[in-house]
Amino acid sequence: MQHNILYAQSGGVTAVINASACGVVETAARHPMHFGKVFAARDGILGVLREELYDLSLEDPAELAALRHTPGGAFGSCRADLGTPESHPEQYARLIEVLRAHDIGTFIYNGGGGSMLTAAKIAHFARDQGLDLTVIGIPKTIDNDLPQTDTSPGFGSAAKYIATSIREVSRDLSAMAGTSTKVFILEVMGRHAGWLAAAAGLAFDVEESPLLLLFAEIPFNEAGFAEALRARVQCHGWCIVVVAEGLLCGNGEFCAQAQQSVIFGHEQLGGLAPQLAGLSRRLGFKTHWAVSDYFQRSARHLASRVDVDQAYACGSEAVTYALQGKTDVMVAIRRTSDEPYLWTLEGVPLDAVADIELPVPRTFIRADGYGITEAARRYMLPLIQGEDLPPFRHGLPVFATLRLQRVVQKLPRWTSSLG
Amino acid sequence: MQHNILYAQSGGVTAVINASACGVVETAARHPMHFGKVFAARDGILGVLREELYDLSLEDPAELAALRHTPGGAFGSCRADLGTPESHPEQYARLIEVLRAHDIGTFIYNGGGGSMLTAAKIAHFARDQGLDLTVIGIPKTIDNDLPQTDTSPGFGSAAKYIATSIREVSRDLSAMAGTSTKVFILEVMGRHAGWLAAAAGLAFDVEESPLLLLFAEIPFNEAGFAEALRARVQCHGWCIVVVAEGLLCGNGEFCAQAQQSVIFGHEQLGGLAPQLAGLSRRLGFKTHWAVSDYFQRSARHLASRVDVDQAYACGSEAVTYALQGKTDVMVAIRRTSDEPYLWTLEGVPLDAVADIELPVPRTFIRADGYGITEAARRYMLPLIQGEDLPPFRHGLPVFATLRLQRVVQKLPRWTSSLG
Repeated sequence: MQHNILYAQSGGVTAVINASACGVVETAARHPMHFGKVFAARDGILGVLREELYDLSLEDPAELAALRHTPGGAFGSCRADLGTPESHPEQYARLIEVLRAHDIGTFIYNGGGGSMLTAAKIAHFARDQGLDLTVIGIPKTIDNDLPQTDTSPGFGSAAKYIATSIREVSRDLSAMAGTSTKVFILEVMGRHAGWLAAAAGLAFDVEESPLLLLFAEIPFNEAGFAEALRARVQCHGWCIVVVAEGLLCGNGEFCAQAQQSVIFGHEQLGGLAPQLAGLSRRLGFKTHWAVSDYFQRSARHLASRVDVDQAYACGSEAVTYALQGKTDVMVAIRRTSDEPYLWTLEGVPLDAVADIELPVPRTFIRADGYGITEAARRYMLPLIQGEDLPPFRHGLPVFATLRLQRVVQKLPRWTSSLG
Repeated sequence: MQHNILYAQSGGVTAVINASACGVVETAARHPMHFGKVFAARDGILGVLREELYDLSLEDPAELAALRHTPGGAFGSCRADLGTPESHPEQYARLIEVLRAHDIGTFIYNGGGGSMLTAAKIAHFARDQGLDLTVIGIPKTIDNDLPQTDTSPGFGSAAKYIATSIREVSRDLSAMAGTSTKVFILEVMGRHAGWLAAAAGLAFDVEESPLLLLFAEIPFNEAGFAEALRARVQCHGWCIVVVAEGLLCGNGEFCAQAQQSVIFGHEQLGGLAPQLAGLSRRLGFKTHWAVSDYFQRSARHLASRVDVDQAYACGSEAVTYALQGKTDVMVAIRRTSDEPYLWTLEGVPLDAVADIELPVPRTFIRADGYGITEAARRYMLPLIQGEDLPPFRHGLPVFATLRLQRVVQKLPRWTSSLG
């Protein structure tokens, strides 16, 4: 009866996804009567198909505990998704082979909306085939765009990083603005949702601040923006602009993409900050710009304690659901109070979250489109509470060092790629 | 006999320059028999000429103490310098007028090499005119390019920020590299010196790591770099590149400037990271890039405790020198031992530091030009030791809030600009 657990990480990693892994492993270890080993797949679902599994029972428990404060994805991640059983039956046949070969009773997938779709497909297929497989999802995304949950682990820490950094930078810029730089532009992640741009709004306690946010949800209006920027610099002497990489131009295209293809001959997003800096300079303002990129999702040294706690709790709860016989659900966070921030966990159907992305609600965006409302503040502030510094040694943070011992492969090599 | 002290900040600000201000104010306050008030000039030397002075005796001592953990420049900074007494006699006449009008006995200038030149000019002029003025410099620069001192306050914290962030990002990148992003490029400050690029080398404990540093001191060789990058990705599966903004092309021009003028029609440096990302993508690697810009010099939440202590001590020592009758000197840090790191302070002539910039010595750069040596590690590691988190409230750092009460002006308005 002691089947094994298979855990995998998927999508862009975060500062706290390994805390969820820690919650899974440590909770499973407390139930040796119910669970066998915990395996982790290398590079998400791809490692499952390739039968590339790590045996976590061979790890030093202290290093597994250190996962709680280790950023990145300890087992590798992937952005690939399964096809459908109809279009790619060989993927599902292989999946079942691997799960059987390693006596997997519980599959736990830790990721965002796309990953929950993968988990849902596996759950449906298992049900259709009459397999005894428990499938649980753990939410993860700095983009905070998953439905059915108050927030997604990873967002709170990225939000805290951005709000703190902007508050710090405001002290620098205000010192320089009298004689030099007057505008600072930061580009943050957020392809379809502007949650991380919204988080910058927390840097200032009052609405009337020298800060302009450019949301993925509000089409960019160059003339209006130029006017707003000029007004802020005139009033405060300086202005900070935080732009979501997914900012859309009037025609519905990504602003970044449109320009990027011209400048760098490549379609990857990014590069909005230097574009906006050019605009700001044309207005006559000396301008500095920064792009946070991976820093904002791996800055474990500035993690939100609430976020770390939720990430760990979600991992732990996933195992509890397996114990209780719940399946086909994602662990979701339910808020029961804003202040003090109180929350519980509940299982929501994978189908209700699979591949759905929620934008920042319009009620969270100020009427002029360049700031956040009190409602947004009330929602976000609880998520960045508390500090949780990793241990430092010789001046630098110390992270988990895992052995990552491969499980002996029992099947022929998988040579296909993912659809 | 109780003349006043005039303190001013100059050049790009740092995460710890206000700790030096704190050292000045708190030390002067312990000697009420020797000093009158401490005034701070707004925007550096410009505020002196404009007679824009803040009276720090009117501040809440608790807020002055909070300067120790407040990034940016509390009184504003400037990049302007005085002309010579021959070319701009009116500037010097005005200077003397302001110093006399406010009974300034000690002028303390906190900045980098250019600022020490300004201080030296003032000191020489005062001597020539037989004025009883004490002039002391306090070092400050994240670029770490000042001579005669073991390091400059500001560098240690920026170095710790970069090394920590790169260590964190390495966990993210290594998770993604199996299936997605293989190269991450960070552009750091350093117009003429590659110290901040060097600091990234501390992120890894061993030399044989997936990290390439591009120093301002080593002319860029595109073919050689492409080959080194390919080799690192082949060996490790991924690679991080950290490039100093002041990277020079073969022809001795700034790489950034050459491209920038084409792309953005502007000569400000910056934009190297996206260029290198383009190169990396042409090699077939999915690539992410980031630009730290002001973050690296204002990230007070990740300050080095050694750096904060040195910044405060330098401020305090400047006042002690004034007490002792020393003048025309900059407070310098002298290292007496690497491990444990021991240091003392000493006064060095302003003339010996004025307008001199030291590059990273070749012995600190690996033979292949892409990494640091053990000697560099031995030098830099002590400077990033210890954490010194500012207080956090409601999830965000709390910084000093000063009243900044202006001293009543006694002179006619100064309308000239600086040369």
